[in-house]
Amino acid sequence: MITDSWRKQLIATNKIFDNLSDEELMQEVSPGRNRGIYLLGHLTAVHDLMLPLLRFEEAKYPELKPVFIDSPDKAVEAIPSAVQLRQQWKEVNETLSNHIKNLPADDWFTRHANISEEDFIKEPHRNRLNVLLDRTIHLSNHRGQLLLLKKKI
Amino acid sequence: MITDSWRKQLIATNKIFDNLSDEELMQEVSPGRNRGIYLLGHLTAVHDLMLPLLRFEEAKYPELKPVFIDSPDKAVEAIPSAVQLRQQWKEVNETLSNHIKNLPADDWFTRHANISEEDFIKEPHRNRLNVLLDRTIHLSNHRGQLLLLKKKI
Repeated sequence: MITDSWRKQLIATNKIFDNLSDEELMQEVSPGRNRGIYLLGHLTAVHDLMLPLLRFEEAKYPELKPVFIDSPDKAVEAIPSAVQLRQQWKEVNETLSNHIKNLPADDWFTRHANISEEDFIKEPHRNRLNVLLDRTIHLSNHRGQLLLLKKKI
Repeated sequence: MITDSWRKQLIATNKIFDNLSDEELMQEVSPGRNRGIYLLGHLTAVHDLMLPLLRFEEAKYPELKPVFIDSPDKAVEAIPSAVQLRQQWKEVNETLSNHIKNLPADDWFTRHANISEEDFIKEPHRNRLNVLLDRTIHLSNHRGQLLLLKKKI
């Protein structure tokens, strides 16, 4: 159910990004708030870091973290282009989706990378499935904001 | 994990509502979009309908549905006051939380009210837990928008 819910949120978010022009991505979701391009970079950076967090593989674009996670929008002058971020977003999610599809059910209940084996015995809910649930909610949170960028007909 | 995630989203959303004045609730989350008060009514209506959907009890405020689910914002002239909606929101979630807390783990994997027993045999993922997961994501989606109402310091 959770992997299905992740997949659905991703499809819905991609639909929004696909319908937004690069120009529209440069708009703020609300006056004074994050721009669409920042949210694209932020989500790409967060999903990229899920690769090591879920113990799948190393992050592909760790250079996104200081710009799109550690810094707020407009704090960093030079950010990657929309074209480049769209490409990275696609690539990160494809890699992630392949791992997710192939992970045996039982393995979802094993620890994620940010908890030691000893602590995990005491806190078994800090497992990989919980990371996916948390990131599904994170994605949905920002998807609600991205929706505001779409021009009303 | 899912009930925990529901609870956390609810706490985070309440924190936003508590920090918004009734006046701020009348603002749109972005120009031309839903007002805070509409989202409060919408979430109250959706959570209220979870009571029968999860087979807990009847909806408390079914009159909210035509205004806050079937109609978009500003389509209905006379809507309940912020004071009244805040009260209903609190009440609905308290009732819901009590049921959620008391439902035995196995019962989460039984059917929700919108699927027949026959169909449920074929589609066992259409269970009560999946409703809760779906509504957690729904809540988070709108929470991301409500965040935009908070004045930047």
